[in-house]
Amino acid sequence: MGQPAKPAGPVVKRIPDGDNQPRLVCDDCGFVNYVNPKVVVGAVAVWEDRVLLCRRAIEPRVGYWTIPAGYLEVNETPTDGALREAREEANAELVINALLAVYSVPRISQVQLIYRAGLASSKIWPGTESQEALLFDWADIPWHELAFPSVHWALNAHREVRGESAFSPRTNPPGESGDHMPNTKRAWHTETSS
Amino acid sequence: MGQPAKPAGPVVKRIPDGDNQPRLVCDDCGFVNYVNPKVVVGAVAVWEDRVLLCRRAIEPRVGYWTIPAGYLEVNETPTDGALREAREEANAELVINALLAVYSVPRISQVQLIYRAGLASSKIWPGTESQEALLFDWADIPWHELAFPSVHWALNAHREVRGESAFSPRTNPPGESGDHMPNTKRAWHTETSS
Repeated sequence: MGQPAKPAGPVVKRIPDGDNQPRLVCDDCGFVNYVNPKVVVGAVAVWEDRVLLCRRAIEPRVGYWTIPAGYLEVNETPTDGALREAREEANAELVINALLAVYSVPRISQVQLIYRAGLASSKIWPGTESQEALLFDWADIPWHELAFPSVHWALNAHREVRGESAFSPRTNPPGESGDHMPNTKRAWHTETSS
Repeated sequence: MGQPAKPAGPVVKRIPDGDNQPRLVCDDCGFVNYVNPKVVVGAVAVWEDRVLLCRRAIEPRVGYWTIPAGYLEVNETPTDGALREAREEANAELVINALLAVYSVPRISQVQLIYRAGLASSKIWPGTESQEALLFDWADIPWHELAFPSVHWALNAHREVRGESAFSPRTNPPGESGDHMPNTKRAWHTETSS
């Protein structure tokens, strides 16, 4: 009674000794919770010029289309992570052939490594995180139903480097930080819940 | 007396409710420390063919030479992070011109983005994390006093892509996962304290 219960864990923002940034620290035990940027790995994967897209069955952006991608796990290499995500979301086996792009979404501290890949087989089907997993001709890509700005960017990047074997990975389009979908100035913040 | 002091913070390994992976939890406050892969950003930076190296003033590998590199901060783009690290460690202003390499050290869940850069000026001097900051001719690089395997890799990668403007970023040398220095099979575990 009297004193409200103190929230537990590292919930106090303070600059720790010897540091120069505020961090969340725990006043019970002194633990400092260093929050780090997160790595997303994914791939633009094609079978005979048709590109693999998955319709999301989970938030954020449920019902919208994405390339297979997700958070890198601990002790995993980026290419292994991209292969795993394609298996999880589309039961697809990829053959990675290049790093297509490195995107940055600083607002949510995300670094995305997107690879260019071929499909080992056209036999794909949705995993538990997908409603559908399909191959699209370029002309049929559902541009207005893509889940995230970087899906847009990655598909265009893939088109740009067609036929090139040695190229610099693409980065964010000029002036773009992933805060809105291409062709709209509407703020784009649902990614934060990802 | 009697009982030894219990270590503080999230130091107990346990699978939290609703999770499927063991995580470090704190028995004092219940905090779960979700560990994610970490992003290291850095650069091989040159001035008239001489490469910038810093002699480390901090653990791990104090006294050994490294390229300017460190952990990406939250809300920071990888290139901004690489510029910041060069300022912090060598008071150097870089001009980044390409992504040189993407390295992976899965044992310690590190993804490294190493850029190729020029120095805006040869006027460099050690920051607080460095004992020295110097420019080295290729022939004078202290190969046996380099701090980490990936410093070795990055310097060689830089040499390999000389004169190339469009190239695929280099990755770990075949079979290498950053667990030992090149030319030795001695296990290489001091990086874990980084």
